[in-house]
Amino acid sequence: MININIIESYLLDLQTRIGDTLMEIDPQLRLKEDQWHREGGGGGSSRVLSRGLFFEQAGINFSHVHGESLPPSATLERPELAGRPFQALGDSSVIHPLNPYIPAVHMNIRFFIAEARKADEVPIWWFGGGFDLTPVYGFEEDALHWHRTARAACAGFGGPNPAAYEKYKKWCDDYFYLKHRKEARGIGGLFYDNLNQPDFDSCFAFTRSVGDHFLEAYIPIVERRMHTAYGERQREFQLYRRGRYVEFNLIHDRGTRFGLQSGGRTESILMSLPPLARWEYDWRPEPGSPEQNLYDTFLKPRNWLE
Amino acid sequence: MININIIESYLLDLQTRIGDTLMEIDPQLRLKEDQWHREGGGGGSSRVLSRGLFFEQAGINFSHVHGESLPPSATLERPELAGRPFQALGDSSVIHPLNPYIPAVHMNIRFFIAEARKADEVPIWWFGGGFDLTPVYGFEEDALHWHRTARAACAGFGGPNPAAYEKYKKWCDDYFYLKHRKEARGIGGLFYDNLNQPDFDSCFAFTRSVGDHFLEAYIPIVERRMHTAYGERQREFQLYRRGRYVEFNLIHDRGTRFGLQSGGRTESILMSLPPLARWEYDWRPEPGSPEQNLYDTFLKPRNWLE
Repeated sequence: MININIIESYLLDLQTRIGDTLMEIDPQLRLKEDQWHREGGGGGSSRVLSRGLFFEQAGINFSHVHGESLPPSATLERPELAGRPFQALGDSSVIHPLNPYIPAVHMNIRFFIAEARKADEVPIWWFGGGFDLTPVYGFEEDALHWHRTARAACAGFGGPNPAAYEKYKKWCDDYFYLKHRKEARGIGGLFYDNLNQPDFDSCFAFTRSVGDHFLEAYIPIVERRMHTAYGERQREFQLYRRGRYVEFNLIHDRGTRFGLQSGGRTESILMSLPPLARWEYDWRPEPGSPEQNLYDTFLKPRNWLE
Repeated sequence: MININIIESYLLDLQTRIGDTLMEIDPQLRLKEDQWHREGGGGGSSRVLSRGLFFEQAGINFSHVHGESLPPSATLERPELAGRPFQALGDSSVIHPLNPYIPAVHMNIRFFIAEARKADEVPIWWFGGGFDLTPVYGFEEDALHWHRTARAACAGFGGPNPAAYEKYKKWCDDYFYLKHRKEARGIGGLFYDNLNQPDFDSCFAFTRSVGDHFLEAYIPIVERRMHTAYGERQREFQLYRRGRYVEFNLIHDRGTRFGLQSGGRTESILMSLPPLARWEYDWRPEPGSPEQNLYDTFLKPRNWLE
């Protein structure tokens, strides 16, 4: 049975858990919370944690919007649903650490339902989501932990061939790719969309599993790296790499582009952008350096668990 | 008579004049020059001046590329030209000052020609270009000087109704507009495209007039503002406003998006991005402040000369 209230409760609780966990690790973080309403219907809450000792900025968003007419760009795979009344619920978090040894991270889970308009129509719903990691300096043990936890999130879900982890890991690699740079955004993780098989309960259980495994995947990496000393060089490289994050989000990310084009709340959509980013013409890492190692070892899609 | 060599000579000379003028004003600027070649044919030279006392970064580009098949996105207005062999020549400069009281500036002039493939075809050519100013702190006298010089660049050109300045000034306001922010990028200037009337000589003369007036429009403003003292607050606001520049170029700018999508040289295309930019969630200027004045007085399209 489709139950939107329990999805909303889950998403609100997950938003709170993520925020509380970051505040616990980094009590210097300042919290700004906005409740906002959408003209077309619904609204959300945006929590921004900023200026911590370890995290420069984290945006932790929940939204539940509804509308009279599903935009075509929200349903590319099923154009016949465009124009139906709809609801969309989601959590979206992006964390930009201050310490360059802590990777940036992004997670999102979302639920769409296109309502029936006539007696011969049925409501069509689907889940989507995932999480992906963007290190500035790469560490194999972090990548292994990240992908093992992603695999654990998928355990017991998905068809036998390919298993859910392999399928959603590849989807993530394909999605978070900067074509104009021929570079991955980071080391990937999971990405899925249009999930409505075999039934609502299984899809929601899988989505909860992804949500629940997010902190389990990220926090041990944070704890391992947060006390590593860094200097100007590491900070400069972090700001430079954040430029790629901006490029991905503004050039490629479908959610961002759709949101801006469809008149979404700009400040909430662009909360994913880093607080500070740097560009430098034709910069290249020194051969053999840890910066070069990021490009060679971590920014090429790779099967970490094989 | 169409003479591509004299266009190339003009563009190379203008590139040199712009670079030399900046070096004269700010001899601490470091110059990096790259000659590059395009796989499909042609190439260009990218000059980056950086880390000056007054200018943080300036990218001064010339390119002359040719290809076997004009991409459809380069000829939206005349889809029948897509697929023809073509040449494209242009200068493009973007200057990001260090001192927040000096406005950022952009100029571009370009020439396209779609060659004839068969006996019954004729070559189709057109010019485009313009310049626009992006102040961080606005000054009426600067805006007046800028637009008066833009009008002077147009004097004697264009049809009677509307005159060239009014037409290209409006085109500039329309083009350099951030829809998702409901904000102008700056105070505008001139923007024109598809110019091929009444004849080659007149169009080239107008394009030279735009190119020649660029430094005349910009440099007096630089000289008026470059010694104004600034502090953390002005620098922070400058970096924040540069975020808008990034947003415009990556979300809206047709040249950037076309270049990246068509496999152009990424480092040259993205040389327009600022060396450093900042985002801050839901930031608003203090009422009555100079920052608020920028939004109220300068970021709303306005007829400066009336």
